[in-house]
Amino acid sequence: MATVEQDLATAGSNGSGPKKYKVIGTRPIRHDGVDKVTGRAQYGADIRLTGMLAGVVLRSPHAHAKILSIDVSKALALPGVRAVVTNADLSDPGDRMCELGEGAVNLRHLNHNIFAKDKALYRGHAIAAVAADNIHIAEQATKLIDVKYELLAPVVDVVAAMQPGAPLLHADVYTDDLGEKSAQPSNVARHFRFEQGDIAKGFAQAACIIEREFHTATVHQGYIEPQNATAFWSADGQITVWTSTQGSFSVRQQVAELVGAPISRVKVIPTEIGGGFGGKIRVYLEPVAAALSKKTGRPVQVLMSRADVFEGTGPTPGSFIKVKLGVDAHGMIVAGEASLAYEAGAYPGSPVGPGAMCIFSCYNVPNGRVDGYDVCVNKPQTSAYRAPGATNAAFAMETVVDEVCQQLDLDPLEFRRRNAAKEGVRRVDGPVYPKVGLVETIEACQRSEHWNTPLEGPNRGRGVASGFWFNCGLRSSCSATVNPDGTVALVEGSTDIGGSRTGIAMQLAETLGIAATDVVPTVGDTDSVGYTDVTGGSRVTFATGWAAYLAALDIQQQLCARAADEWDVPAEAVTYAEGGVNGPEGRRFSFAEIAAKVNAHGDPVVGRGSADPQHCGGAFATHIVDVEVDPELGKVKVLRYTAAQDVGTAIHPAYVEGQIQGGVVQGIGWGLNEEYFYDVKGVMRNSTFLDYRIPTCLDLPMIDALIVEVPNPGHPYGVRGVGEVPIVPPPAALANAIAQAIGIRMTQLPMSPPRIVHEILKKNV
Amino acid sequence: MATVEQDLATAGSNGSGPKKYKVIGTRPIRHDGVDKVTGRAQYGADIRLTGMLAGVVLRSPHAHAKILSIDVSKALALPGVRAVVTNADLSDPGDRMCELGEGAVNLRHLNHNIFAKDKALYRGHAIAAVAADNIHIAEQATKLIDVKYELLAPVVDVVAAMQPGAPLLHADVYTDDLGEKSAQPSNVARHFRFEQGDIAKGFAQAACIIEREFHTATVHQGYIEPQNATAFWSADGQITVWTSTQGSFSVRQQVAELVGAPISRVKVIPTEIGGGFGGKIRVYLEPVAAALSKKTGRPVQVLMSRADVFEGTGPTPGSFIKVKLGVDAHGMIVAGEASLAYEAGAYPGSPVGPGAMCIFSCYNVPNGRVDGYDVCVNKPQTSAYRAPGATNAAFAMETVVDEVCQQLDLDPLEFRRRNAAKEGVRRVDGPVYPKVGLVETIEACQRSEHWNTPLEGPNRGRGVASGFWFNCGLRSSCSATVNPDGTVALVEGSTDIGGSRTGIAMQLAETLGIAATDVVPTVGDTDSVGYTDVTGGSRVTFATGWAAYLAALDIQQQLCARAADEWDVPAEAVTYAEGGVNGPEGRRFSFAEIAAKVNAHGDPVVGRGSADPQHCGGAFATHIVDVEVDPELGKVKVLRYTAAQDVGTAIHPAYVEGQIQGGVVQGIGWGLNEEYFYDVKGVMRNSTFLDYRIPTCLDLPMIDALIVEVPNPGHPYGVRGVGEVPIVPPPAALANAIAQAIGIRMTQLPMSPPRIVHEILKKNV
Repeated sequence: MATVEQDLATAGSNGSGPKKYKVIGTRPIRHDGVDKVTGRAQYGADIRLTGMLAGVVLRSPHAHAKILSIDVSKALALPGVRAVVTNADLSDPGDRMCELGEGAVNLRHLNHNIFAKDKALYRGHAIAAVAADNIHIAEQATKLIDVKYELLAPVVDVVAAMQPGAPLLHADVYTDDLGEKSAQPSNVARHFRFEQGDIAKGFAQAACIIEREFHTATVHQGYIEPQNATAFWSADGQITVWTSTQGSFSVRQQVAELVGAPISRVKVIPTEIGGGFGGKIRVYLEPVAAALSKKTGRPVQVLMSRADVFEGTGPTPGSFIKVKLGVDAHGMIVAGEASLAYEAGAYPGSPVGPGAMCIFSCYNVPNGRVDGYDVCVNKPQTSAYRAPGATNAAFAMETVVDEVCQQLDLDPLEFRRRNAAKEGVRRVDGPVYPKVGLVETIEACQRSEHWNTPLEGPNRGRGVASGFWFNCGLRSSCSATVNPDGTVALVEGSTDIGGSRTGIAMQLAETLGIAATDVVPTVGDTDSVGYTDVTGGSRVTFATGWAAYLAALDIQQQLCARAADEWDVPAEAVTYAEGGVNGPEGRRFSFAEIAAKVNAHGDPVVGRGSADPQHCGGAFATHIVDVEVDPELGKVKVLRYTAAQDVGTAIHPAYVEGQIQGGVVQGIGWGLNEEYFYDVKGVMRNSTFLDYRIPTCLDLPMIDALIVEVPNPGHPYGVRGVGEVPIVPPPAALANAIAQAIGIRMTQLPMSPPRIVHEILKKNV
Repeated sequence: MATVEQDLATAGSNGSGPKKYKVIGTRPIRHDGVDKVTGRAQYGADIRLTGMLAGVVLRSPHAHAKILSIDVSKALALPGVRAVVTNADLSDPGDRMCELGEGAVNLRHLNHNIFAKDKALYRGHAIAAVAADNIHIAEQATKLIDVKYELLAPVVDVVAAMQPGAPLLHADVYTDDLGEKSAQPSNVARHFRFEQGDIAKGFAQAACIIEREFHTATVHQGYIEPQNATAFWSADGQITVWTSTQGSFSVRQQVAELVGAPISRVKVIPTEIGGGFGGKIRVYLEPVAAALSKKTGRPVQVLMSRADVFEGTGPTPGSFIKVKLGVDAHGMIVAGEASLAYEAGAYPGSPVGPGAMCIFSCYNVPNGRVDGYDVCVNKPQTSAYRAPGATNAAFAMETVVDEVCQQLDLDPLEFRRRNAAKEGVRRVDGPVYPKVGLVETIEACQRSEHWNTPLEGPNRGRGVASGFWFNCGLRSSCSATVNPDGTVALVEGSTDIGGSRTGIAMQLAETLGIAATDVVPTVGDTDSVGYTDVTGGSRVTFATGWAAYLAALDIQQQLCARAADEWDVPAEAVTYAEGGVNGPEGRRFSFAEIAAKVNAHGDPVVGRGSADPQHCGGAFATHIVDVEVDPELGKVKVLRYTAAQDVGTAIHPAYVEGQIQGGVVQGIGWGLNEEYFYDVKGVMRNSTFLDYRIPTCLDLPMIDALIVEVPNPGHPYGVRGVGEVPIVPPPAALANAIAQAIGIRMTQLPMSPPRIVHEILKKNV
C-alpha cells in the first residue's frame, strides 16, 4: 500500500475540503443506461451457446427431512435427459471458511447448500439437478427422480429454535459460547459479546431507562433478476461460467472449491446483473451448471424461477432483539445493553456480528454491552442484504431512542445530535471513529424544509431515525487504454449493480481531465482484469474508483514521457495538468492531441491500477418520514420522506440520490409489508411477487435525498460508500412516525395492516 | 521505444547465440488445443444472442454490370423481414487510405466493395442484405429484391485488362505511372519501378541470360471457416461486433469508418478463428451486420457460404510476370530485370508491391530493375494471402535460377549459397539486410539426408527453391494478472490463428520462470486490451511476445517491491531470478510463494506491456521436393518434401513445424491444383471445395521441417516470424522438380494434370 498512500498524499484533495472538480459532481448519462432501458443489455439468462442444455434443479418439498435415498434411474432413462447430478458430484472442500468480501462462508456448508447431503434443511433445498435437451424435458425428469425422505419436525422461528428440545438441524453444530464449546449440539452456533465501560454503573446514573423486545421477519433482497448460471466445462478441464454476480472472482473461488479445480481453470464472465443487494455473492447454480456440463460435455444453463429465488436463496434473517437504554437527566446516554438473536437459516452464519456492532453505532454509549446469537432454523441460509444486520438492529435501537425522547420530552433530532457518534468516540465493539458525518446529517435534517414544515391532520405522525454502516475497502483493479480518438477504454473488475462503471469512469476522467463520456468502461472477466473483490460493502466507488485513479496516473506518466520525446526535453520537464501534457516554454498537447500522437506510432499506452485502500470511512444517515395510518384498515401511507446522508464526495449525485432512494424504498418495504409467511410445515406460502409485497411506485412518495458531503480524508477524491446505509433507518423512522400518529409502539416487523389493526384493537379493548 | 530498447539491451540473449531456456524451445500442450479438437471452441457462427436476426446478402450474378435500380419493396413486404440495407445505408469515408497492418485499403473502395454503388464489378459483388426472423425468410427475401442491371463486358485476365480497349472497370481510376497521372482512365492503377546499378552494364557481363514469362492463377486462402459477423447496435450508438478476424482493432477501425461512428463506439469481440492466412483482415460482413442491426434494433448475424467466400472475398491475385536474369562465367548474378503485373481484382490494391520487392530478394543482384503493375479485373478485390505477392514472384525467379543452373551446369543449392542475400547486401528496392539466415537454410539443405539421398526412377525429379518474406513488427499490447495459485492470467490483443496465444504465454512464462501451462492466455476484445495490430506479417510471436515479455518484467518489478516489503529490506536489494524473488542473506520466495503472499493482502499485481518493435528481421527458407509425374495423366505426385527455414528462435518448435508444414501444403496446392475457373461471362465455375482442389492428406507426403535458428538480434528471445515464408518456395521447387522429371519447364500455375498433359503432348509433337 506504500505506493497508494504516497499517491494519496500527493493527490491534494484529501481532507482539505471540497475541491473544484470538472467531472466529479456532474451528472453525465450513464454508460449502460440506454442498453438497460431499451432491454438490450445482456443478462445471465440471455446467454446462448451452441449445443447448450437446460438444467433444472429438484428442490425439497419438506422443510426438514432425512434423505434416505435418491434414485435417478427413471429420470436418466427419459429421452432427451443428458445427466443428473447430486451432492455426490460436488467436491467437498471440508470445514474451511471462504472469504466472500461481505462475510465468509463455511465451504462444507456451502457444499451442502448447493445440494443437500444427508438432510434437507429447508423447503426449497436443492436435492439434484437434471440437464436435458430443453427445459420441458428437464422439468419432467426432475419429477421422475425418486427421493425417499424421513420427515422431521421443522423449526422456523429464531426464539423457538433457541429453546431446549427444539428440533435440531445439525448433530455436529455446537455453540461457540463466548469461546467455549457447548456440551450438546445446538441450533445456536455462536454466542458472542461486546462490552465497554460498566453498564451497571451506567444504568445507575440513568434518569430514564427503556427496555423493549423486537421481532423482525425474514425478508428477501427482492432483486428483479433471478439467479442464473451458464457453464461450459471443456474436455481439458477449463471451466467457463457466465453468471449475474456481485463478484466474479468470488464466484471463481467458490466454483473452484466446489468442483475441485484450481482457480486458474475457472473463468467467470460476469453478465449484466438485475439487482443483487448482497444476495448474489454466494453461489447457488454455478457449481450445478459446471457439474452438469462436466458430465455432458456441453454447455448447461440453469435458471431460477421466482419461487426458487424465495425458497432457495438467502434472504436476510428474521431476528429477536432486546434493547435496554439508559439516559441521564441531561439527556445524555449513560448505558446501553442489547441482545440480538438472528436466524442463520439452514447453516450457521447470520449477519448478527455486524448487527451487534451497529446497534449502538450512532451514539456515544460509554457503558455498553451487546450479546449476539447466531441461530440455525429451517429456512434458506441467510445471505447479505444491504448493510447486512444493521436494519434489524436500528429498528430496535432507534425505536427505543424515540421512546426515551418521548418520555423525557426531548427533540429526537437534538437528542441524536448531542449523543451522536463523532471523531474520537469509541464504539462498544472497540473501534474509535475517524472523521465521520453523522452530526452533519442530523443538522441537515434540522435545517430541512421537511422538518420545519408542521405535519397536520389526524392519524398522522412524523418519525426520525439514524443509521450507520461501516463500508469497506478491499481490493480492486483497473486497466485503461488510450484510444487515438481521445477516448479511453477502461476495464474494471467490479460487476456493476448500481451504475458503478460510470462512477469509476468519472474518477478516471477527472484524473485525466477528459469528459466522462470519453471513457468507455467495461466490466472484465476473471481472466481479463486484476483481482477485484465483490461489489458489496459500498466499496466499489471508493476502492475501484481508486484503482481507476491510479490507472489514470499511470497513463499521465506515460503520456508525459511520450510528450518529452516529442519535444526532445527531459521527462521531468513535462507535467500533466488541465487535461493535457505541458512542457517548457508553453508547449502543450491536450489529451486528445497526445492520444492521437501516441497512437500514430510507438508503444500503445495502457495504464494499470490496483488498490487495497484501508481508510474507507463509515457512512451515516438520518431520515425523516411522515405517515398517515388508516385506523380501520391498518394501512400506513407514507406521506413524505427525507433522507440525509453523508456520502463523502458525491461522484455522480444522481446515482447517489438513486442509491439513497433505492435503499429507503427497500427499507420501507421491510418496515411495512415484506415477510416470509410460513405454514406449520415450514412451507413458505407467499413465494411470488404477487404475495410477497415489495413496494411499487404507487406505494411511495418522492424520496427526497439530502446529500451531505464530508469528504473522506482516506480517499483521493473524498469518496465514502453510499449504497448500504440508506436501508438502515426506514423501519425505525416509520415505527416512530406510527407511534406519533396513533400512539402505538410497534415492536414487530413488518408493520403490516393486520398487525397494526391488531394493536389498535388491543389498545381499544 | 526508448524503454523497449533498454529492456532489450538488458535482456542478455540478443545476438549472443542460443541461450539455455526453460520454457522456450519446449513443446507444451497448446492452451486452446482440446477445445479445438473436441469442437467446443466458440467460433463466430457459434454466437447466439437473444432476439438475434439472420442476415443474408444478395450478390451480383453478373461479373460486370451497371446497377440501374434496386427495388426492395417486395422483400420488405415479406412477413418476417425486418430490414433491407444497400450501399445507401453505409457511410462513405471518401478517398482515404486505411492502414490494415498487412497492406492498406482505400475506404471509398472498401465502401463500394461492401455494397456495390453504381456498378457490380464482379460476380458475387454484394448488392443488398436482408435481416429477417430466420435465414430461410431472409434468403427468400433476397430473391424478391428487384435489381435492374445493364450488362457490360467483363475482363478477368490481367494481360487482357492492360490492353487498350479492354472493358474499363472504373471511369475514375487513372494510372499512377511512375508518379505521373495517365491521360485516360485505365484498369492499370499503378506502375512503379525499383532500380539499382546499371542493368545494361550488368547484362553485358553475363555469360548466360535467361528471360521467361510466367502466368499464375487466382487462388484462394481456403480457410475452413467462412466469414461471419454478428453485430448489435444499441439505441445509444454503442456497436458491438463479434467476428472471426485477424485483427479486432482493424475491424473496429473499418467498421467505424463505414458506419460513421467514432472508434470508441465500436467494440469488436474476436471469436476463435478457423483460418485466415491474410483473408480475414479486410471486412465484408461486419458493416452489413451493423447496418442491419441499426435499422432493426436487434442483433443480426450474417454468415457466408463457401460460394460466398470464393466469390465474395479477396483471393490472392493471378499474375503475369517476366524475369530476365544474367549470370557471369563464375556463376555470379550480374543483372536482373523483372516485370510483374498483378490482378487487383475489382479495386486497386494488389500485393504487387511486396511481390516486386521480393522477386530478387534472395540474391545479391548488383544491377537490377523491377517494374510493377497493379491491374483491375472483374474479380473479387484481392486480399493478402500468406507472404502476399511473394509466391507468384518466387515461382518466376526461382524457375529462372534453376534454368540458369541447368544451362551452366551448376549445383542449384551451391549457386544459391554463393549468390545468397546476406548481411550487408542491398536489395534492388533499397534496404540493406541485417543478419539474416538464408545461407544457413541452404547449408541445412545441403547437409540434409534428403539432399544426400539420390532420387531414382523414371519421371522423377528433384527441385529446390528459396523464398523470402519481410515479416513485420507493428504494435501489440498485453496485460497479465498474478493469481494466488501461482498462475498468471494473460490478456493479449492478437487474435490467434495459429496457436499464437501459447507462443506468447511461453515468453511470459520464460520471463517469470514458471511453466507455460501456468499461464492462462486470453485474446482480449478491443475494449479490454491495449491497441494491437493485426495477426499478420508473421508478427505475433515477435511483437506480442515482446509485449508479454514487458508485462512479465513489470510483474517482476512489482513482486520484488512486495518481497522487499515482506522482508523489510530496500527494493534494490531484491532481484527476480530463477523463477522467484531473491533477497539478502539467501531470502527467497518462488513465484508461487510470492504470488500467494501478494494475493493474501495488498494491491493485486497486474503487469502491462506494450511494444512497437522495429527490428523484426526477415525470414528465409529453402525447400527441396521430389516428384514423380504420371506421363499419361499429367498428375504430379509429391514423393518427399523438406523445408529448411530460419526461424530466429523457435519458441514452440511443434508450432513452428506446423507453420512450415501448413505453408508448404498451401504452396503445393497453389503449385499443382488450385485456381479459379472463369467462364466467358466472368462467372467462377468451381466455387466449392469439391471443385476447387486444395490438397488433402492423401495428396501429400510428410513435410519434413528443418528448423534453422539464427536468433534475431532485434528481439529479447531472438524471435523472427515463421508463418509466411514457407508458402513462397513450393510452386517454384515443384516446377524445378517437374523440369528434372520430364524435361519440361512449366511457366503457368497451377501445374495441373491438363496443363502438364498439354505440355507433354506439345513436346512430343
